[in-house]
Amino acid sequence: MATPTTYTGVIPPVVTPLADDGSVDRGSLERLVQHLLDGGVDGLFALGSSGETVFLTDAQRDEALDVIVHTTAGAVPVLAGCIEPTTPRVLERVRAAERLGAEASVVTAPFYAIVGPYEIERHLRAVAAASSLPVLAYDIPVCVGRKLPLDLLLRLAAEGVLAGVKDSSGDDVAFRQLRLGLDEQDDNGFALLTGHELVVDGMLLAGASGSVPGLGNVDPAGYTRLHQLAGKQDWAGARAEQERLGRLFRIVDAADPATAAGATRGVGAFKCALHLLGVIDSPAVSLPMRRFDEAETGRVREQLELAGLDVRR
Amino acid sequence: MATPTTYTGVIPPVVTPLADDGSVDRGSLERLVQHLLDGGVDGLFALGSSGETVFLTDAQRDEALDVIVHTTAGAVPVLAGCIEPTTPRVLERVRAAERLGAEASVVTAPFYAIVGPYEIERHLRAVAAASSLPVLAYDIPVCVGRKLPLDLLLRLAAEGVLAGVKDSSGDDVAFRQLRLGLDEQDDNGFALLTGHELVVDGMLLAGASGSVPGLGNVDPAGYTRLHQLAGKQDWAGARAEQERLGRLFRIVDAADPATAAGATRGVGAFKCALHLLGVIDSPAVSLPMRRFDEAETGRVREQLELAGLDVRR
Amino acid sequence: MATPTTYTGVIPPVVTPLADDGSVDRGSLERLVQHLLDGGVDGLFALGSSGETVFLTDAQRDEALDVIVHTTAGAVPVLAGCIEPTTPRVLERVRAAERLGAEASVVTAPFYAIVGPYEIERHLRAVAAASSLPVLAYDIPVCVGRKLPLDLLLRLAAEGVLAGVKDSSGDDVAFRQLRLGLDEQDDNGFALLTGHELVVDGMLLAGASGSVPGLGNVDPAGYTRLHQLAGKQDWAGARAEQERLGRLFRIVDAADPATAAGATRGVGAFKCALHLLGVIDSPAVSLPMRRFDEAETGRVREQLELAGLDVRR
Amino acid sequence: MATPTTYTGVIPPVVTPLADDGSVDRGSLERLVQHLLDGGVDGLFALGSSGETVFLTDAQRDEALDVIVHTTAGAVPVLAGCIEPTTPRVLERVRAAERLGAEASVVTAPFYAIVGPYEIERHLRAVAAASSLPVLAYDIPVCVGRKLPLDLLLRLAAEGVLAGVKDSSGDDVAFRQLRLGLDEQDDNGFALLTGHELVVDGMLLAGASGSVPGLGNVDPAGYTRLHQLAGKQDWAGARAEQERLGRLFRIVDAADPATAAGATRGVGAFKCALHLLGVIDSPAVSLPMRRFDEAETGRVREQLELAGLDVRR
Repeated sequence: MATPTTYTGVIPPVVTPLADDGSVDRGSLERLVQHLLDGGVDGLFALGSSGETVFLTDAQRDEALDVIVHTTAGAVPVLAGCIEPTTPRVLERVRAAERLGAEASVVTAPFYAIVGPYEIERHLRAVAAASSLPVLAYDIPVCVGRKLPLDLLLRLAAEGVLAGVKDSSGDDVAFRQLRLGLDEQDDNGFALLTGHELVVDGMLLAGASGSVPGLGNVDPAGYTRLHQLAGKQDWAGARAEQERLGRLFRIVDAADPATAAGATRGVGAFKCALHLLGVIDSPAVSLPMRRFDEAETGRVREQLELAGLDVRR
Repeated sequence: MATPTTYTGVIPPVVTPLADDGSVDRGSLERLVQHLLDGGVDGLFALGSSGETVFLTDAQRDEALDVIVHTTAGAVPVLAGCIEPTTPRVLERVRAAERLGAEASVVTAPFYAIVGPYEIERHLRAVAAASSLPVLAYDIPVCVGRKLPLDLLLRLAAEGVLAGVKDSSGDDVAFRQLRLGLDEQDDNGFALLTGHELVVDGMLLAGASGSVPGLGNVDPAGYTRLHQLAGKQDWAGARAEQERLGRLFRIVDAADPATAAGATRGVGAFKCALHLLGVIDSPAVSLPMRRFDEAETGRVREQLELAGLDVRR
Repeated sequence: MATPTTYTGVIPPVVTPLADDGSVDRGSLERLVQHLLDGGVDGLFALGSSGETVFLTDAQRDEALDVIVHTTAGAVPVLAGCIEPTTPRVLERVRAAERLGAEASVVTAPFYAIVGPYEIERHLRAVAAASSLPVLAYDIPVCVGRKLPLDLLLRLAAEGVLAGVKDSSGDDVAFRQLRLGLDEQDDNGFALLTGHELVVDGMLLAGASGSVPGLGNVDPAGYTRLHQLAGKQDWAGARAEQERLGRLFRIVDAADPATAAGATRGVGAFKCALHLLGVIDSPAVSLPMRRFDEAETGRVREQLELAGLDVRR
Repeated sequence: MATPTTYTGVIPPVVTPLADDGSVDRGSLERLVQHLLDGGVDGLFALGSSGETVFLTDAQRDEALDVIVHTTAGAVPVLAGCIEPTTPRVLERVRAAERLGAEASVVTAPFYAIVGPYEIERHLRAVAAASSLPVLAYDIPVCVGRKLPLDLLLRLAAEGVLAGVKDSSGDDVAFRQLRLGLDEQDDNGFALLTGHELVVDGMLLAGASGSVPGLGNVDPAGYTRLHQLAGKQDWAGARAEQERLGRLFRIVDAADPATAAGATRGVGAFKCALHLLGVIDSPAVSLPMRRFDEAETGRVREQLELAGLDVRR
């Protein structure tokens, strides 16, 4: 059951702090990266869904990635989301990732465009062929409307087209089948990352090589502990830490459901928490999302305190 | 039942011809625009789904819109799709539409980002507030994963936030309720456009002010005749013309379903047909789509001939 | 464009009146059938979705169908819904329909069971093979989770396996393609019925042979007029009548959305209206639905009066 | 983290063996129950999805449940699926479960009928109120089209309306949140059963009280071992056993995808395997499913042998 891989451990999807005028807040982003490195993370995923990548202009994306790469200074690998609806546009972002010093790119299935398995395969192959960086597939049906097929992932892994998968599909059965299939291939230098921040213990037990927890922005040390406990086969300890993090995740339930859907709930909560923890200067989020209001912020504060985090504001 | 509006009649979503190297084929695009104007259309919708807008880089989009505006030379209004996942990115495209001389922008609900009704309203209001052009909402759940709510559309119409709707929702019940609701408002200068190219007769009977038929690229004169017959209340004639166009639409069934999903089927078929008709130089489409192969092209040719169109290749 | 068929005109899906104790209210059902016949309908569809068929026990279903058949007394054809998740259970209902004197059965794709096109075809063929009654397919993806494929319907029509389709799919493009395909087959004695009560004018223009409007329970005479106007090619008149009915349909919006989803909204509104019109004795509906409360009933009354109907309570 | 519950351990959803004429094969069912008890299971779930309950007539359901209860003879608890679209029909099945000696009933959200959270709550409360047996909620969105809301489950657990949940939702985040919420309530005598047969190790780590694995029909001893290893906190051993079972699950991939969707793949594979193992006399399944053909059976045999099971045919 050995699962050696290139990208392992805790790799949080870094949120992109914004100033109140909507510009990227470089100082806050530098502090956030340091907060994550101090928390013991093993890599950073820039420009992911939690990083508001589809809300940022190309100039903002370049700025954010640049800050993250420079602040990290090689301490851990930086993966860069290259998330656009179609191949030509993804390739533009791959060029930027190469130019700005990312170690790998992370690419979803096409979206908006109506495609099937054939076009998805063509897409991933075309991106990989034109890229000097390793490519990880990002499986996120809730955003793109389609799941990456198991047989496709296994085929592209075997051929070395893909260097890994970031699985945010919520399909735990497919995850297990993917793990089984990968274990039957010769080379296991393939990153199998889970985005399911509330089930990291179970996913590590199942053979995930790492996790990409949005909540890891708020409590990186917690996820580091969870991984360490799992690494020591202390599964009861891992579960206890996961449950603590699961309760902390209730910061997303602080959002008023009448005026906050998925994106606002997640990014809004993480930024609100990071602001309260003194890591970033503003809880501002991109339009059409809204920042958490006073009542919501109060509920976030309460959860942070229950989780034993050091609230500064 | 009078339904005066700003944008009426046949407004095809202009496909974007590409050279074999993937660049925008300006000469073919000029000929296509002329083909559409010769066919009697009443407006042009640049950079829509049929225009491969989510496949094009910003530079390509600007180039295509520029060619369309200049070739049209004010003969008919040019609407420009400003189709991006979120508000800040849509606003970048609105700026380009303003700069390049479009008469209105067309904007979908956010996509990829997980949003609810509150964020959709916030999105459309923010775009309209920051734009000097009229804004039409583009209701296309098959691409963005969510339907624009009826009450939202009526509210934004009443307030003048929106200048119209392009309805590609396929929800004919909601379309009728929208028509009824608009008729009860004071001002009817609101464009209610249908994207359902196979049901234009029924939609005109129901009070659509215009149609945006992808198939109109191939046979603009057919759609012009259909609208004229409906305008004369010759509904039997309109139905007969619609049925001829419905049979012509079988060019999309020419695609091999094993290697062509929705996007490839539609855009691939329209470009294949325009190439056979001698309007554009290449049937090339953007990655990850593929152009029609020889067998598929043969089936398209057959349908074009059955429809009485002038096949040149 | 002639479209002769066996089942044509207005064929309302008869609601099943219940007494306050949940039993079938035979007297009210007899009055409802008479109300529909007096309204000039051309057929009756018993035990459809509006008839609460999935809420009724087999004994209640038999009782309702028996009352409808006997009250109708051959004046118009009675179609019987045989709506169960799988083939063996549908066949039980087909046996009942045969025994109780229905003229045809109406059958959906399997539901709850996860099936694909192969199993759907096997299902419809098995039901037809074992039935002495003509079988109509009921295309209602909103309830069963899957659309009946176009090629399947055309194949089963050509082979005479199916005698018709009741289309509640909301897919107007597929409807038009089905019409075109049927018109290219030799025999057109195939019933193409639309369940879209708000678009009957457009569907008749498009070649529907009849309509199955739930709202036809409330205002059968309105739908009869609409069909007659369409039959005389008075499409402006048909549209005006359709729009009146479209406004009347707002009785379903009378429901409080917090405690009423689709089923309650539709059946609850129709029964509330029929009660106010004096046709049935109680607006009771089956669990887990609830009957309209006083506020909702007030809003229904208002719409009935606006539509010019004779409110008795 | 103690999670005492009434229903714990391995509780397979018993398949219903059929004779070639479609009748319930009582002898095979008796042998299957004995095979499961010999395999060390802790309970039986009769008339679940794997038991083809929506394919069986009421008479067949009664017969199957009767055989299961009598063969079990009190050795382990027998839970009975009461799976029908709506409340009145579920109550008919609850009456049968009571009469035939089941220990609890298992009830889904309404299906076919379009309902929302309000109606789902009303449904579960009405069933529980009218039942003398404990009621477990069956969360299976892939069959009924809607997920049971977390807050609803916690509320009904707290009030004692529900005795447990059988979770086949595939939503591992919601599962964890449910576990956390239940642990914060006073009484933990609530059964949290997982239907995810490929992730039982992870679900037990996460605090599931038991599993309901369809594959447990084929290899009950494997699931018993898996539970025992987890009970001893031997998580590496549990994972290894789960992975063996994960490979065995490939019997469902033996099905030809062109003619076998979800239901056929699962039930067809389990029955094919049980037939090869000599437990049941025929691999027959209900219409519109089909039994595995020779090629498929060969592939199933191969997987059974790889898994070390005793193939008899």
